[in-house]
Order: sequence, then structure tokens, then C-alpha cells
Amino acid sequence: MTFFSGVIPYLVSPVNSNGGIKERVLGDLCSDLIRKGVSGLTPLGSSGEYAYLSETQKMRIVEVVVEAASHRVPVLPGVASVSTQSAIDQAKAYRSVGVDGIVVVLDSYFPLREHEARKYFLDVADSVDLPMIVYTNPNFQRTDLSIETICAIAKHPNIIGLKDASTNTGRLLSILNRCDSDFAIYSASSHIATTVLMMGGRGWFAGPACVLPKQSIELYDACMRGDWNDAMTMQKRLWPFNEVFAQYRLASCLKAALRAQRYDVGDPIPPQAPLDASAVKVVLDALTKVQGF
Amino acid sequence: MTFFSGVIPYLVSPVNSNGGIKERVLGDLCSDLIRKGVSGLTPLGSSGEYAYLSETQKMRIVEVVVEAASHRVPVLPGVASVSTQSAIDQAKAYRSVGVDGIVVVLDSYFPLREHEARKYFLDVADSVDLPMIVYTNPNFQRTDLSIETICAIAKHPNIIGLKDASTNTGRLLSILNRCDSDFAIYSASSHIATTVLMMGGRGWFAGPACVLPKQSIELYDACMRGDWNDAMTMQKRLWPFNEVFAQYRLASCLKAALRAQRYDVGDPIPPQAPLDASAVKVVLDALTKVQGF
Amino acid sequence: MTFFSGVIPYLVSPVNSNGGIKERVLGDLCSDLIRKGVSGLTPLGSSGEYAYLSETQKMRIVEVVVEAASHRVPVLPGVASVSTQSAIDQAKAYRSVGVDGIVVVLDSYFPLREHEARKYFLDVADSVDLPMIVYTNPNFQRTDLSIETICAIAKHPNIIGLKDASTNTGRLLSILNRCDSDFAIYSASSHIATTVLMMGGRGWFAGPACVLPKQSIELYDACMRGDWNDAMTMQKRLWPFNEVFAQYRLASCLKAALRAQRYDVGDPIPPQAPLDASAVKVVLDALTKVQGF
Amino acid sequence: MTFFSGVIPYLVSPVNSNGGIKERVLGDLCSDLIRKGVSGLTPLGSSGEYAYLSETQKMRIVEVVVEAASHRVPVLPGVASVSTQSAIDQAKAYRSVGVDGIVVVLDSYFPLREHEARKYFLDVADSVDLPMIVYTNPNFQRTDLSIETICAIAKHPNIIGLKDASTNTGRLLSILNRCDSDFAIYSASSHIATTVLMMGGRGWFAGPACVLPKQSIELYDACMRGDWNDAMTMQKRLWPFNEVFAQYRLASCLKAALRAQRYDVGDPIPPQAPLDASAVKVVLDALTKVQGF
Repeated sequence: MTFFSGVIPYLVSPVNSNGGIKERVLGDLCSDLIRKGVSGLTPLGSSGEYAYLSETQKMRIVEVVVEAASHRVPVLPGVASVSTQSAIDQAKAYRSVGVDGIVVVLDSYFPLREHEARKYFLDVADSVDLPMIVYTNPNFQRTDLSIETICAIAKHPNIIGLKDASTNTGRLLSILNRCDSDFAIYSASSHIATTVLMMGGRGWFAGPACVLPKQSIELYDACMRGDWNDAMTMQKRLWPFNEVFAQYRLASCLKAALRAQRYDVGDPIPPQAPLDASAVKVVLDALTKVQGF
Repeated sequence: MTFFSGVIPYLVSPVNSNGGIKERVLGDLCSDLIRKGVSGLTPLGSSGEYAYLSETQKMRIVEVVVEAASHRVPVLPGVASVSTQSAIDQAKAYRSVGVDGIVVVLDSYFPLREHEARKYFLDVADSVDLPMIVYTNPNFQRTDLSIETICAIAKHPNIIGLKDASTNTGRLLSILNRCDSDFAIYSASSHIATTVLMMGGRGWFAGPACVLPKQSIELYDACMRGDWNDAMTMQKRLWPFNEVFAQYRLASCLKAALRAQRYDVGDPIPPQAPLDASAVKVVLDALTKVQGF
Repeated sequence: MTFFSGVIPYLVSPVNSNGGIKERVLGDLCSDLIRKGVSGLTPLGSSGEYAYLSETQKMRIVEVVVEAASHRVPVLPGVASVSTQSAIDQAKAYRSVGVDGIVVVLDSYFPLREHEARKYFLDVADSVDLPMIVYTNPNFQRTDLSIETICAIAKHPNIIGLKDASTNTGRLLSILNRCDSDFAIYSASSHIATTVLMMGGRGWFAGPACVLPKQSIELYDACMRGDWNDAMTMQKRLWPFNEVFAQYRLASCLKAALRAQRYDVGDPIPPQAPLDASAVKVVLDALTKVQGF
Repeated sequence: MTFFSGVIPYLVSPVNSNGGIKERVLGDLCSDLIRKGVSGLTPLGSSGEYAYLSETQKMRIVEVVVEAASHRVPVLPGVASVSTQSAIDQAKAYRSVGVDGIVVVLDSYFPLREHEARKYFLDVADSVDLPMIVYTNPNFQRTDLSIETICAIAKHPNIIGLKDASTNTGRLLSILNRCDSDFAIYSASSHIATTVLMMGGRGWFAGPACVLPKQSIELYDACMRGDWNDAMTMQKRLWPFNEVFAQYRLASCLKAALRAQRYDVGDPIPPQAPLDASAVKVVLDALTKVQGF
């Protein structure tokens, strides 16, 4: 079974005001992150404003990232829909351009029952021969999966892990305790990564790692060495940058921070307004504070 | 200024298992509803499972409904997105095939501030020369509009009214009291239509009217005559059918009821499962009870 | 069976800074309201800040109101607890000083299952020989009762009606449709009273009627005569005063308005701060506007 | 400044069906827990069903626990109210019988603004010369404190720490990063205690420790030694018992488990029904599983 590990940044989606993808900016960002040591790349997550993009835009973004990665690190785009068919279509399209795995979200309009949610994930997993990570984010999705459902779908050979973006770390411990031991748990930015990795997490899908790859990788490496005290010290330094995500919109923060790092990633996609000057200052202050160490 | 009034049913979206639109079924349903006296047709609302359809499917549905309507009644499709550009693209596309107005929803991923939400509606209203009704549904949308914002966007010449699908009728009274008097308020199925019409509502966008057009129109006519006691008697008879919508998913209920009326509208769009036998029984019992009067 | 009808104001609880009840102020307010035509008096509701009072304070308030009423109108205090025994103790204590009925709330700490909530109401109803009105307020209570439970407890001979303070008027229509016809439904201030009375409501428990008794009674009388258009006109005039309750805390608004009417009712109970000057202005502007008609 | 550390179990409140406190049972439980090594005792928390008890019952419970403790370990009862005066009255009463500190909750009826919540805690802290721990539990309390407010009240000499019962461990890291370094953070059962202690937490207020004191103390000691891998192994074994608290009501689970350990603590306080047989089985299975190690 294929596994992914290490620090895997969520990528922003640089889009022109006319809707075109800023391909060179995106490609440069990918190359720089790889050079700095990230273990994979994930376009089309929340950080990537996937919900604001057309199918055409999403496809182009995946192509650009796959090309920039050039097989140096795996590419795992987000696949998200309220409709099974649309999720399958996305998965097949991204498969066709050479992605290495997919991170699958279930969006909801009408609330679903557990067996419907389960079928969504199983149907997507059946549709493509790719390792698949289930992504749960109760802040943005209407349907939450029970631990029973997660352990049940974990038995599908293509479903290799779970990335959770809640703040409830105890729930991850329950999943680790109850699901098969080869089911991988990944931290998202809303958890304290150190704690998830100490519990047995396999990797860290992280928005902040798009902006702070070096610091994120150092923290991850300390965890892998079992230097928990060092890791927690680094974690405390890094945390203020996570805090700004709770204050402002994740993708808007990342775009503001990347622009400060000379990546011309453009503005958040309308109707989202760019962060105002005082918010940008909060983001950059947090960034400076973290980088200062 | 153009206004719409009367009973305007929300249409279901009949879709084959391969994703094709069941055009004849949809056309027949539209024609039958017009013959029975409805005052307009609204595809692509919640009842129409808009969130589960591709842009191509949505476009084809609008074309079929416009053709079936043949200018006998206005057609007002739903336009919905988290992205301003996508909403504008929909509005322009539907305009190009001859719709008479649009009912605009703001979906959200990241929560929006009021000024961003306002800009979304104003940008859509600027983009096409069509009367536009704002649709608020706090159960399914993350962004709720303040009364101040509603009254502010109501001044745009294209924005003629509000259709609200909350259960908070008092809020509609506040809007009627505070916004310009030519801003039209429409009832949705979650309100007791009689009370909204008594307060000065201009019409009734109604899921149930797709299945019970005759009874809905009789109720509406009693309200227009000011026969409030008669209207309330009819309203009480009709209400049990509204109640099933609170119990099961709206679109699934309507599809089950229409199938019982020999419209081959197909199943809810996956991952939604069709209603199970006991739920179908509850829906049909409510239907029978209402039709029995 | 005893019923209550008409306009029944919720009373504020005038409390000194040392915790003593301002008995004369409370007595004068009761007498004035009775002279102006109210049909009953209800101390110890949300408006009465019941949750902030000790058992001793609550008892004294009930005594003062019963004495002031002097059997001219019925007195129906609120009885509220998370504990069955405490609710029974309150009911018996208030019964012993001569109240005419009770309005019973179920507060919750740990969420309850339906059968537990049902038992609470039935146990309180069994404990005293008094007509009892169930009070549901989903904004402030953790446990919501299903319509099935409401209709089941409605069969208890002491349980004569329901006062609901949600904003969901359609739910009241469902209850009227489903429960026994002698089960009385009462409007609270969060509903448009006219619509509840048109549906068959028996009376109106109203916070605003404590401040605007005359206007509230005129509206009620128009409803009783079936002059629905007149009633709706008056309702629209009165509604801005209801709106301030959604903006600020109900009890704080009422205390500010009563002070402007020369009732020295004191401040909200700490830690609640008194409304600040700008909020008082909003409340008094709404009051002036309503009284101006 | 006085600090508390170690494992401090939350106590249940054993109450007879007539409302009397089962004093001998409570005293025996306290003595046994002290003998097994706990570092303090906390009556009148959520686990102690404080919201269901009269002031008289709460006072008697505190007296019994203080007497049983006999100065061997500190006693820190919960103080909770929606009203400042009532909280102060409780604090003074418990002070008068010799408690060593208080754990203060702000319950809410009407939602409070930050400055009102802050004043509640400061007024209680001013009222008695006792170390005070602020207790936040967003699942059961309507008012949540901002990190700014927490750091501000942390400067009061009597306010020595925070016990948080949310599931959001990241928020605790933010508080540790932002408040003064002598402000103590305590874990509650909803957090993974190991992670809070690794971050710098000073102790563990724990419902489960009432039933599993030995295992809880072993885990705590491993953390204090910095044996994080051992600690996490023990934590995983212990966690299933925490999970049942998320499934059933905390206090009901503890009472069922303690009865299985031959403490005749009685039933949950009505209207709460005792756990049914299948729920008791789930609780005892979790208990057996944990004790089996």
C-alpha cells in the first residue's frame, strides 16, 4: 500500500482578475517548496479556494502542479463535491494527468445519512486506481462522518488515510484506537501537529507550510526523532501563524503572506474581498514573529 | 418595474442515471402546471437540486423549461454560487435563452462580511438586464444578510424582491416595515403563506405547488380576496404536506410525490438515496390527506 | 377546564442593588397594567430575569404580584428548573400564596431525551392542582420538545396550553393541527401575534405589553373581532418595539423603557450591565415611534 | 502564589431520592481517592451535577468533602451561577467551611458581552481571599471568553489558572503563548491530558479519575517524568473511558461506573433517567477494558 508522509503544503490558487490561472507563479511556488524539502503538494483544498473555481480552472491548476512537481514529490489534489458523479469526474480527470493520489471531501447541500456519505466515498474510491485520503472538515461541511463509518470505509484498498481539519484532537485518538492499524491519520493546521504526530500521525497536510516550509519541516523532523520537548518549543513559536487563520479566512491569509514573500498570487476570489490593511498587518506580524526565530 | 405574483412552483430536476435530463417529463410537468393555473416556473432552486447539477445540466433544464413555458408564464431560474463570476456566467447564459427573471442565491464557503455579500448581489444585478429576486435560506447558506443590507441592495433597479426560506416570519415583517414599499416580499414553503400574504407579500414561491397546484392556487386566491378565515382553513389542510419537507429532504419528497402522480422524474441525485418505503408512505399519506379535501 | 386568554404581560423583576425586591414599584406596575385592561400577569419569565433570582427573591415577587392583583386578573408565574424537584417546590410554594396557574419551563444542563423531558412536565403537573402552561423557548433552553411529546403531555388534565417563544410560527400550526382541539396555543413576543391569533391562538403572553399595554390590547381586540386588516396595520406599527428585543436583551430593554415611563424598576441584574446610552436611545426611539400613532 | 497540580478528580454528588446527601458514600469515596494518591478533590462540577442541586445540598456536599479531606489534599469546589451575587454567596459560604480554592463557572441566560463576563470573574475574585481557577466549558455555557479576556483576568492575584473543557487543545496553546507565564492551564477530560501536560499544563481536573484514579495518576506521573511515549501508550488505553462521556451524560456514566465499584452513589438527579441496561454495559465494558491492562 502506498503511503504519504512528511509535510505536505496546501497550495493557494493564483487566479487573474479575468479568471485565468497565474501558471508561472504557481509553478515557481511549487518548485521552491520542493527545493525547501516538502514531501508532497496538495492543490485544491480549502486553502486553494476550490469552492470558488470552475472545473476548467481546477483542471488547469492540477496540470500546472503536476508539471512543476515532475515526479519529485507526489501531487494529491483535492476532490470535492456534493454530487458523487462530479467527484468521480474530477478524480478521473486528475488521474489522467498524472496525480499520485487524491484528498476527497464530501460537501453537502441537503444533509446526508451515514450510509449515503459512506457510499459517496466508496463510489469515488471504486472509480479510480489511486490512493485516496478522506478529508473531514466539520467547520465547512454539513455532513460529519461517524467513527464507525470512517473505520468501515478505511477497509477499502484505495482509502489509505484520513486528514481531519476539526479542532477535536481526541477524536483522532479514538480513530487511531479503533480503525485498522494501517489506516493513516494526517494532521491539518487546526490541530497542534506535534500532538497528532505523537499519537501516531503519518504526516501533516498544512496550509502554513506553503509560507513557512522550513519551520514546518524542522518541527516535523523533531517529532520524527522523538524530540518532543524540542518539537513543542518549535510548535509554540509556529502557532501564532496558525492563530491568524482562525481570525481571518485561511486562503486570504496565505495569499497575503505569499505576496509579502514576492509571490504574485493575486487576490482572494470574489466576492471575497482582499484582507484590509490592518488584517494584512496582523498576518505579516505573525509571519515576522515566526520567521524571527 | 416588472413584478411577479401568484403561485410560482419550484420545479424538480428529472435526471437519468447517466446524468441526462429527462426532457419530456420536465416539459410535461411544466405544461400541466401552467394549464392548472400557476403564475410562473422556477427551475434550479433547492427543490431542483441545483447544487448537485453541472453547468451543462442546469443550462439544458433552463432551456427545456423556457421552451415548455412558451411565454405563457414567466420563467425564473435559480442562480447560485459561492463565486461572483460563476453567478454572473449563469445569469448571462440563462438570459441568452430567454428567461424572464432570476432568483439569486449566495452560497458560501468561507464566511463573508456584509459588504462582500452586498457586492455579490449588486455585481450580479449589474451584469444582466433582468428582474432579480434575492433568495435567502439560512438553513442551507452560511451567509445571512442583515435587514440593512437587504434594504440597501433593494435600491438597485434590477433587484425587485426577496424570497425568504427561513422560518422567521417576523423578520419578513421587519423587512416590509423598513425597505422601500415597492420591494416585493415572496413567501417560500417554510413560512405559512397565508401570513406572509396577509402582511403584504406579493407571491408564493412554493415547492408543494409543483405537486398540489390546484390547492395552492385556491389558497392564494382566498388570500387575494381577503377571505382570511377561508384561507387559514385551507392553509391548515395544506400544511401537513409542508411538514414532510421538514422531516425528509425537500427534493426527495417532491420526486416521490410526483412519481405517485405518474411523472417519471427519477430518483434524487446521488449520493442522496431515494426515500425508503416508510418515508414514501409518510409523503403519500400527507398527499392523500391534502387531496382528500 | 380553566383557560386564560387576552393580553398577559410578562413582568420585569425590580430589584435593588442589595438584592431586595422593589415591592412598591412592582405593585404599582401591576395595578396600572390591570387598570389599562390586561387579562393576567406573569412574573418570573425571561423578561423577569428568573434565572438571575434566588428562590427567596422569586417567592417575594410572586407574593407582591398576587397581592397587587387582588383577584382582579389571574397571576401565572413562571416555574423553571433543570431539576424536577426544584420545579415542584416552586410550583407548590407559588400555589400556597394563591397563584391561578403556572407557566412551566424546562431548563437543561445535560441534554435530555424526549421521555425525560415529558416526565418533567408530567411530574410537575401531577404535583399541584393548578392549570399549567408549557413554555418552550429554543433560544434559551437546550431541550426542545417534539410535537409528539407536546401532544402527549397535553392530555394531562392540568396541562392546558403551550406558550412558544421560538420564531417558527409554522410549528405552532402543526401543533394546532395535531394536538387535541382544547389544547390552547399562546403567542409570545417572538411571533407576530396577529398570525398566531388568526390561526386559533387563545392569548398573547407579551413582554412588550408591560410597556405598551394599550396598543397591545387594541391589536388583540381587532384580532378577536376578525378585523385582520386593521390588526395587521396595528401589528406593523407595534413591531419595531419587538425588533429591539432581538437586538438587545429583552429584560434590559423593558427595564429601560419602564424607567422612561417613570417606573423605578432599577437595572438589569449583574453581571448584566445596563444598556448603554446609544442602546437606550434605540429602545426609546422605538417606543416613541409606536406610541406616536 | 498557591498552585494546584496533579490529578484532581471531579466528584459525583450522591443524592437520595428524597434529596438528602448520601454523606457516608461521599466521604468514603473521598477517603479512598486520597489513599490512592489524588492531589485534590473537586465537588460541584459538571460531573457533580451542580446545576441540579439546591444551595443547601451544595453546601452540605462541600462540608462533607472538606471533612473527609481533613487537610490531606486541597478541596476546590465549583462555584457557578448566571448571577454575580449568587456566585459570590457560594464562594463566601464555601470559604467559611474551609475550602482551599474555587473553580468558577459563568453560566448564562441572556448572552453577555465580554466586559460583563470579565466583571463577573473579577467580582467573584475580589469577594473572597481564595485561589480561583476559571472554568470554561463552551458545550454547556452560552458565554465563551476571548483569549484577551482570559489573559486580562489572569492578572488578578486570586485568579491562578484556567480549566478548559472544550475539545480545542490549540486554544490552550494560544493561551499558554499569550498569557503571563505564571498562569496555570489545567486539562479537563475532553482534552487528551498528555497533550495538555506536554504543552505545559499544571494539572488534570478529571471526571474519569473519580473511577480510575490509579491509571490516571500513572499517566500523569509518566508525563511529569517526560516519558511521552509511555504516557501516550497509557493515554490510548485510558481513552475509551473518556469516549463514553461523549456518548452518554458524564455524570450518569460516572454514577454507573462507581456503582459497579460498590459505591452506592444513587441515580442521576431527575428528570435525568438512569442509564438504561445497554448504556450501562457500554460504560462497564469500557471500564473493564481499561482496568484490564
